[in-house]
Amino acid sequence: MVVGFEKAVSATKSVVTSAKKAPTTLSSDRVINFARGDPTMYESYWRQMGEKCTIVISGHNLMSYFSNAGHFCWFLMPELDRAIRRLHCVVGNAVVDDDRYIVVGNGSTQLFQAVLYALSSSYDPDTEPLSVVAAAPFYSSYPEETEFLRSGLYKWAGDAYSFDKDGAYIEVVTLPNNPDGAIREAVVNRDGGKLIHDLAYYWPQYTPITGKADNDIMLFTFSKATGHAGSRIGWAIVKDIEVATKMVKFIELSSIGVSKESQLRAAKILEVINDDCQNSAPDKEENFFEYGQRLMSDRWEKLREVVKRNGFFSLPKYPQDYCNFIGKYTDPSPAFAWLKSKDGLNCDNLLRELKIVTRGGTNFGVDSNYTRISMLSTDEEFNLLLERLSAIKGTIINGNN
Amino acid sequence: MVVGFEKAVSATKSVVTSAKKAPTTLSSDRVINFARGDPTMYESYWRQMGEKCTIVISGHNLMSYFSNAGHFCWFLMPELDRAIRRLHCVVGNAVVDDDRYIVVGNGSTQLFQAVLYALSSSYDPDTEPLSVVAAAPFYSSYPEETEFLRSGLYKWAGDAYSFDKDGAYIEVVTLPNNPDGAIREAVVNRDGGKLIHDLAYYWPQYTPITGKADNDIMLFTFSKATGHAGSRIGWAIVKDIEVATKMVKFIELSSIGVSKESQLRAAKILEVINDDCQNSAPDKEENFFEYGQRLMSDRWEKLREVVKRNGFFSLPKYPQDYCNFIGKYTDPSPAFAWLKSKDGLNCDNLLRELKIVTRGGTNFGVDSNYTRISMLSTDEEFNLLLERLSAIKGTIINGNN
Repeated sequence: MVVGFEKAVSATKSVVTSAKKAPTTLSSDRVINFARGDPTMYESYWRQMGEKCTIVISGHNLMSYFSNAGHFCWFLMPELDRAIRRLHCVVGNAVVDDDRYIVVGNGSTQLFQAVLYALSSSYDPDTEPLSVVAAAPFYSSYPEETEFLRSGLYKWAGDAYSFDKDGAYIEVVTLPNNPDGAIREAVVNRDGGKLIHDLAYYWPQYTPITGKADNDIMLFTFSKATGHAGSRIGWAIVKDIEVATKMVKFIELSSIGVSKESQLRAAKILEVINDDCQNSAPDKEENFFEYGQRLMSDRWEKLREVVKRNGFFSLPKYPQDYCNFIGKYTDPSPAFAWLKSKDGLNCDNLLRELKIVTRGGTNFGVDSNYTRISMLSTDEEFNLLLERLSAIKGTIINGNN
Repeated sequence: MVVGFEKAVSATKSVVTSAKKAPTTLSSDRVINFARGDPTMYESYWRQMGEKCTIVISGHNLMSYFSNAGHFCWFLMPELDRAIRRLHCVVGNAVVDDDRYIVVGNGSTQLFQAVLYALSSSYDPDTEPLSVVAAAPFYSSYPEETEFLRSGLYKWAGDAYSFDKDGAYIEVVTLPNNPDGAIREAVVNRDGGKLIHDLAYYWPQYTPITGKADNDIMLFTFSKATGHAGSRIGWAIVKDIEVATKMVKFIELSSIGVSKESQLRAAKILEVINDDCQNSAPDKEENFFEYGQRLMSDRWEKLREVVKRNGFFSLPKYPQDYCNFIGKYTDPSPAFAWLKSKDGLNCDNLLRELKIVTRGGTNFGVDSNYTRISMLSTDEEFNLLLERLSAIKGTIINGNN
């Protein structure tokens, strides 16, 4: 998932926004946008892969609404179902036994809303809307996605830590957390609670895979798993067939299913990853997750170094853990850096002076001395970030003169 | 758009549902489903087109969330925007001047809901939800799409003919109408009304193109224009930038945009149609709309013949009109046949005896002596429909014995 498109879009009017559009060298006085999590850093990996991941679609292919008539999720292509299940087996990050149901969606954003509907639509229409909570700092889009249609079924009820209403509720557990990378558990833990586990970032490049997640409702997204954000493919793994069936109903009513072209491509790319991960040849190349983990670790090391040197900010510390997939102890290297200003100043404002656009803490339910920086930009933008953060003292002192 | 997936899916457990799955010959005692509008009839046309419409996508293509950063509809691919505008110029069915805004959606289903949000979200939260109406018989999904989230912004208020509330409202005008093929105008016509024109079927294969539609908000869908239902691509042409911008916000919050793979493919296919339609070579082949118009006319002629012969039902009569695109007078040949039983019997029940699944009038806000039959099935299924309708007397008489 990604945050703050509206802001990002308005900011990008004067900003380089995609690898495709970027000039060869980014001008050093240009505004750079780290507010959103566009995973452009993976593009070079997929470019190297050449034709292995290429799909070809003829004019008469994929025409029907139906992908698997008679199946509870009639728009899910069987090849994508298989690729997803195999991927989780290969990575070891989620239980996908035969009694678990896969629902595909237009990104995990649509699936999140499908779950809200599935968990609330059978409630008595005369009762209050079901409360939806998440522990702060929480993904900044949850409140807006929950509230924007003013549904009578569910409503945003804020920070899970301060939630004290009786009765049914939904808690979203994001693991590792967006924005701060923390490994979390549910915090309300009362009768009548239903949990949604948003596992968008539970992949080896972001965090050690310490076991197979086995929650009732787990959300994943192609965007963050492999970097293919433009395809708008997400999936849920669901234990209860009734919940899964209601989610399908939501997606049917919202968009009559999910692009088959995107599903076909996702299946292809996931199977290439699966094959590479299971390749046991002695001269095999680094697989996608090994590549991602190495790149992210390297970026985090550089960022920590710069942040330590400039002395204005701090970053969370994460414990090392054994990653079952990588086969050794690894440091967490989250998709976002959760920066805190040491002197309590507004972090966004400080960074704006360096022409760096970030997403401030108030969007995530906490103070403005925090801000979130995407770690998924292109190398060029990331290097410029490091350069500007290194130069912060001079810039801010000059700015204050 | 398409109706009744839930029913269709449950019915299809014992039914042949897609061209891909169909055996070479349909068993004569098999249940056949005409309740939904899966446009499988066009597959053979696109198959003939060979490689002209083929797209090839490499692993590193289309990765970013953004298609056109800085543009109000940041997820719309510029090549699709161009192909859509050119298509409407070529066909002459809608005004697409430079001051009209194109919004792409996950099918026109998502766009319909985006419009409801756009037209209602600025209303005072303390006022009642905005009423949404359509003249009966209306597309059977409008009520459910409007109601399922119990939005506080808008609510379904039924048949436009009996709507008598004061104040603001939204009226959906479907032209030609689904289910009955009628050419319609707004019926409420009071101050405070906003109109949505659903022009899914305003294409030469379904109805004579008598002029360029020039309404405030017009919805179209790739599914019905070309038969590519699996791609989930729809578009809106909008006069007011504020409405268009709110629609974009809705799609951002619902699904963070629209599959780029599908957009790329839609652009390719629409441009092939555009080129074919503008080809002035003396030996040129029949273009897509000419092919569709010929096929649909032929089906309607056959259906009318069978219906006339069996004497149980009647079909609407449509006036011929001059089609600017085809360049001669043509008969309307709607995507659905709106069948009425002459003796007032339940039309669905009658047809179930012939193992034909249809969608009854009550779903469209009228009586059960009406039913809707898709005219967009494969040739094989359509021929079986004709065969069974021809045999109706014997079947029903035997069934009553």
